[in-house]
Amino acid sequence: MQLTIDSPADFHVHLRQGPMCALVTPLVRKGGFRLAYVMPNLQPPITTTARALEYKAELQRLEPRVEFLMTLYLSPDLTPEEVRKAKSAGIVGVKSYPRGVTTNSDGGIESYEAYYPVFAVMEEVGMVLNLHGEVPSDSSANISVLNAEPAFLPWLHRIHAQFPKLRIVLEHATTRAAVEAVRKCGNTVACTITAHHLALTVDDWAGQSLHFCKPVAKMPDDRAALQEVIKEGHPRFFLGSDSAPHPSSSKTQSTPDKGCAAGLYTSATLLPLVAHLLESFDALDKLEGFVCTFGRRFYQFPSERMRVGAIGGGVTLQKLEKTEGTGDVWRGDGDAPAGYLPRVYGKGAEAIIPFWAGRWIGWQILA
Amino acid sequence: MQLTIDSPADFHVHLRQGPMCALVTPLVRKGGFRLAYVMPNLQPPITTTARALEYKAELQRLEPRVEFLMTLYLSPDLTPEEVRKAKSAGIVGVKSYPRGVTTNSDGGIESYEAYYPVFAVMEEVGMVLNLHGEVPSDSSANISVLNAEPAFLPWLHRIHAQFPKLRIVLEHATTRAAVEAVRKCGNTVACTITAHHLALTVDDWAGQSLHFCKPVAKMPDDRAALQEVIKEGHPRFFLGSDSAPHPSSSKTQSTPDKGCAAGLYTSATLLPLVAHLLESFDALDKLEGFVCTFGRRFYQFPSERMRVGAIGGGVTLQKLEKTEGTGDVWRGDGDAPAGYLPRVYGKGAEAIIPFWAGRWIGWQILA
Repeated sequence: MQLTIDSPADFHVHLRQGPMCALVTPLVRKGGFRLAYVMPNLQPPITTTARALEYKAELQRLEPRVEFLMTLYLSPDLTPEEVRKAKSAGIVGVKSYPRGVTTNSDGGIESYEAYYPVFAVMEEVGMVLNLHGEVPSDSSANISVLNAEPAFLPWLHRIHAQFPKLRIVLEHATTRAAVEAVRKCGNTVACTITAHHLALTVDDWAGQSLHFCKPVAKMPDDRAALQEVIKEGHPRFFLGSDSAPHPSSSKTQSTPDKGCAAGLYTSATLLPLVAHLLESFDALDKLEGFVCTFGRRFYQFPSERMRVGAIGGGVTLQKLEKTEGTGDVWRGDGDAPAGYLPRVYGKGAEAIIPFWAGRWIGWQILA
Repeated sequence: MQLTIDSPADFHVHLRQGPMCALVTPLVRKGGFRLAYVMPNLQPPITTTARALEYKAELQRLEPRVEFLMTLYLSPDLTPEEVRKAKSAGIVGVKSYPRGVTTNSDGGIESYEAYYPVFAVMEEVGMVLNLHGEVPSDSSANISVLNAEPAFLPWLHRIHAQFPKLRIVLEHATTRAAVEAVRKCGNTVACTITAHHLALTVDDWAGQSLHFCKPVAKMPDDRAALQEVIKEGHPRFFLGSDSAPHPSSSKTQSTPDKGCAAGLYTSATLLPLVAHLLESFDALDKLEGFVCTFGRRFYQFPSERMRVGAIGGGVTLQKLEKTEGTGDVWRGDGDAPAGYLPRVYGKGAEAIIPFWAGRWIGWQILA
């Protein structure tokens, strides 16, 4: 079977800096994607238009065949004036992280009220607010990584009520509560879902740091809610991979002083992986909506095909059938055979072990 | 400050086999304990009286100054006749693990009904049933490591109702639900609590495999419930460390094919660690009840002092105060200074990294 879909867009990806950036940026295209919505959490974070444009130029040099949409990091330094400047320069969104962005606080949760003047200008000029929707852990309030997302949702509703025309994306939803919250919002609120949260539950990362990411994968019923809303073809739920490369040692080795890094790398095989996952819950017919149409419409970045209504183009996936002798996992060295995920990208200290390294997924992109 | 308590008893400990057994068995005494209730999950498991006695002899040879109480592993091979034989030979309990003991099943949970003839004889002769109180994970029933313990509790109530005189211990409770369930039972049902579950929550093992154990540590409110019932001095809640040594590499290194081993090693410094933890929530006055009196009474293994009413004996702890320059963690090589936990036990492939390696706890045992 072959499947051709319109130009895929990943609305949440980490492309890093330096050698890691050079390694992973071209792999966005290799993974089947034509558009990457790029996170600003570099060191130091991207807080100015000038720095965002500089970073964009670097990414375009590394992979000219991908459209990079840029974001700024929400911090007290971000002024309404800088928001206007950013918008004029083509920067698309502002990303809010749960920690380190606090000016006022309210019961242990960051208060977003301090940012309301910035949000007002974003609403006016049409920039998107990207929310990492978790509150910080707080033992005294019984908040841990498990309920940090549900505990954040009142903030989503509050910001949406205050700025009903501001486009907001709740990033990497992991709970049924988050899916239901976004459903209840108006058409200006959308939600990204990662590939790995369609696959994992808490049991998968318990004791397995290679499956550890933030937000952590939750209960089977939460995973089911993510699958259901995709299967339903809800137009405000679309792919944002949150693909986050880390050097392999930081994913595989703990010491008493330091655990493993949070984050899973999926970008280099993202389209075949998502096809495999959607197929696993009978939602393959929603693939194009989930990876292309819905996100592009919300962000107002239609594909060439959507703009001109042309037929053809897009990316073609080939379904591969298991034959006798096809194992569930490929453990060899060198390049993995078609249908398997590679076991590693890069070499030496910067090598990345991807999510589900070596697993049979049964799909490949046709060149 | 010095604190002398009656002879400490650890009512749940893993002493392993071979070189690991030789390393950890003498450390029970070094950790302040005079009695060890020994788990039967060797390879192969201990399922006969003869094998249990052989193992006991080996442990006594390794550390003659500790009283070892032995258990059998519940399996379909365990007959009522073997239970009678075991009781006559001084074996104290039968341990039930959640997996691999199934004969009949009921909605994905093991059915214990198949074992009712065995439980009836245990009740008659006075053997103790030790329950690992978790059901297997089951996505279709929304069961994961997080709710596996609450989902087990109906079994506890059912077995207790059927065998009201059978002494049952719910092992290593981790949730408020488990604490409340044991409270509601009659005096024949007790509960062990580990040291590490008084310290950890889910946030501590998320991404840190050195804090990964089963049952996993739960929410802050669950930890609070464990602390509260100890602080209250409830006589049916007592220490079972579930100290479980693993070679350091199996605790620190993940691969795509294999995560890290579940289990934390606390035995070698157990009494100072428990003193530190109880002190942290103002329950130091319950130390003797928690580590000696309550467990020994329930198991009917009184200490020499409890038997003869003598004053004196016991184990003395010295409280050490932090001075300027005393860090929170000691990172040097060789023996850790007094008041710190060691960073490692043993050498080479069998080396064990203990729980909270190198941490300042501020207590030591006086020789």
